[in-house]
Amino acid sequence: MSYIPPNFVPPTKDTIGKVITCKAAIALEPKKDLIVDMVQIAPPQAYEVRIKIAATALCHTDAYTLSGADPEGVFPCILGHEAAGVVESVGPGVTTVQPGDHVIPCYQACCKECKFCKHPKTNLCQAVRAWTGRGVMKADDKTRITYKGKPIFHFMGCSTFSEYAVVHEVSVAKVDEKAPLDKICLLGCGVSTGWGAVWNTAKAEAGCTAAVFGIGAVGLACIEALKIAGAKRIIAVDINESKFASAKAWGATDCVNPAAYKKPIQEVLVEMTDGGLDYTFECVGNVAVMRAALEACHKGWGESIIIGVAASGQEISTRPFQLVTGRVWRGTAFGGWKSRIQVPTLVDRYMKGEVSLDRYITHRMAFDKINEAFHLLHEGGCLRAVLYF
Amino acid sequence: MSYIPPNFVPPTKDTIGKVITCKAAIALEPKKDLIVDMVQIAPPQAYEVRIKIAATALCHTDAYTLSGADPEGVFPCILGHEAAGVVESVGPGVTTVQPGDHVIPCYQACCKECKFCKHPKTNLCQAVRAWTGRGVMKADDKTRITYKGKPIFHFMGCSTFSEYAVVHEVSVAKVDEKAPLDKICLLGCGVSTGWGAVWNTAKAEAGCTAAVFGIGAVGLACIEALKIAGAKRIIAVDINESKFASAKAWGATDCVNPAAYKKPIQEVLVEMTDGGLDYTFECVGNVAVMRAALEACHKGWGESIIIGVAASGQEISTRPFQLVTGRVWRGTAFGGWKSRIQVPTLVDRYMKGEVSLDRYITHRMAFDKINEAFHLLHEGGCLRAVLYF
Repeated sequence: MSYIPPNFVPPTKDTIGKVITCKAAIALEPKKDLIVDMVQIAPPQAYEVRIKIAATALCHTDAYTLSGADPEGVFPCILGHEAAGVVESVGPGVTTVQPGDHVIPCYQACCKECKFCKHPKTNLCQAVRAWTGRGVMKADDKTRITYKGKPIFHFMGCSTFSEYAVVHEVSVAKVDEKAPLDKICLLGCGVSTGWGAVWNTAKAEAGCTAAVFGIGAVGLACIEALKIAGAKRIIAVDINESKFASAKAWGATDCVNPAAYKKPIQEVLVEMTDGGLDYTFECVGNVAVMRAALEACHKGWGESIIIGVAASGQEISTRPFQLVTGRVWRGTAFGGWKSRIQVPTLVDRYMKGEVSLDRYITHRMAFDKINEAFHLLHEGGCLRAVLYF
Repeated sequence: MSYIPPNFVPPTKDTIGKVITCKAAIALEPKKDLIVDMVQIAPPQAYEVRIKIAATALCHTDAYTLSGADPEGVFPCILGHEAAGVVESVGPGVTTVQPGDHVIPCYQACCKECKFCKHPKTNLCQAVRAWTGRGVMKADDKTRITYKGKPIFHFMGCSTFSEYAVVHEVSVAKVDEKAPLDKICLLGCGVSTGWGAVWNTAKAEAGCTAAVFGIGAVGLACIEALKIAGAKRIIAVDINESKFASAKAWGATDCVNPAAYKKPIQEVLVEMTDGGLDYTFECVGNVAVMRAALEACHKGWGESIIIGVAASGQEISTRPFQLVTGRVWRGTAFGGWKSRIQVPTLVDRYMKGEVSLDRYITHRMAFDKINEAFHLLHEGGCLRAVLYF
């Protein structure tokens, strides 16, 4: 039986082919609160899907773009990229989903045909990247969103801070309809990213040691994945000690506050671990932390995975000796998951109880309170706030 | 039948247990010509082996240390670490080689017992590293070399610019006695390093594309290994076009001179290859080239391997976005080979004709001409000069 969240009214056939007027949160310009108001969402064109969003979470990337620091940010736009919903209608040529399907829009597309999709080592499908980067749709280089008669740009190919969203078919993962949309919405970004960084990018083995820098939702997802992988030591690193309780609950064996030491945190960790970690994960987006994470790796085999997004123009650096003596520096985007193919498998693993989602959701709020939710995200006590319409 | 190079007189039992006075090239201080004179080589102590050197080649690392730029360089010392010879005597406790064995001294030890040796991902045995880094032997923290009554430091645990050398047992690879010592001496460093960077570190697959930056012996060894691996495109990059003929002969499909372009070489290569290379190898030791090599990698899966040794204090840098979008930054030391175990297998492959050594040797000279050989190395027309006593 299909699971429909309380208060969510599934889409009907009545709106197919029509412009829909619905509620959304518009980012007119950077650094300003979003405006919750009615927008118009045009019908999907060729190879597009219109989704009625059941629940959308907030991610730090939304806040990052809203801050104005994202050089790719185009305004006015509708933010949001961590959501789940039900297909309302599909445009010409769409074959992989149909109205009524439960879906997760994926900011990282997966066309299954480009050289990236065919390559075993990457998930960075480029099929629609040139358009989503500019906030428009591939079919006509235009947007499907209008506010007060003016076009509003899409964001990351998703724009889920809206009751309806038009996305490219290659960005739509069809999932088990029995899965709770107001939980699995988290699989659209942060939690999936943390799990994938551990399982796909690092390929962490049972018995390994690891450190996770930055204990937000992504960091906790790394810790969860490391515990499932059988890591024997998981060190959580954060300057905010209020996060240590969660880190321990998720599976961290040690918690370290870099501010409590005079020496660099990489030296502290190397000493704590008789030479360094097998794997480190940077979930902050700070280039100094990225360097510390690399240098906290064990000589000979330690691998550091960058997950956080640094501010525009910033650079990472280290002595090449760090790499020549065997450390490996990697990064990951969406945890290496080939989205349309693998996100449904993550939903299945959640349904089997193999992975958790519920405990990442610290706040549930009506969509109208979205600006309040952004403030919560900045305060640090919030892992994920899920908004419902 | 054992192969003995012309003019080489194998060691006899007469010297066992005695101090040997023999010819060597002493580096009294940085930036000065070596002094070819007689030195005294003490008998091997516990877990040490005294080798009569049949042939020694020059490597850029010898020149680097002699230049004074190596912060680990200790003077006065005897340089040299790419050689082959015959065991003259062994100290107490030595069980893996005996007088008469043909051997290659390896600057990277392999004790088979430390956590590095037991780890599948690294070859960086640390058994004697603390002593070889200081130019002394583990047994007593002293040197086995004396010149005019004063101790002379060892170099990289080898000091093969000497007719006799005392090295730790864990640094001695016993090899097929039918192999020509004046050829396989190259397996002690540069050529093995280039092959291993491709086969062990990059694990380059058939059909891959690659670029090699810096076409000296190491770069050519990368090209040879890539050709053997079945790479479909091998781009040689060097600002000295006189090296392109060798690059082509070794297997490069394209040769590129960065100085011939106004745009950065990474942009040139990305355009030439529809997005970048699967693998790049930095064989120069220049941090700007290391960055170019990383950024010439294909988004999603390209891996760059640092082989060259940068000057002390220099740092590599790039935008973290390069890694987050799938490029991997690695390094290699001695090509990842577990020396004592794997160098003998490289000798075997050479004997079967699977890999080449002879064509890397551009100069053969009497040991007395060692300063001339250093000058040749700096001129760029020399791949490897092999010196014989």
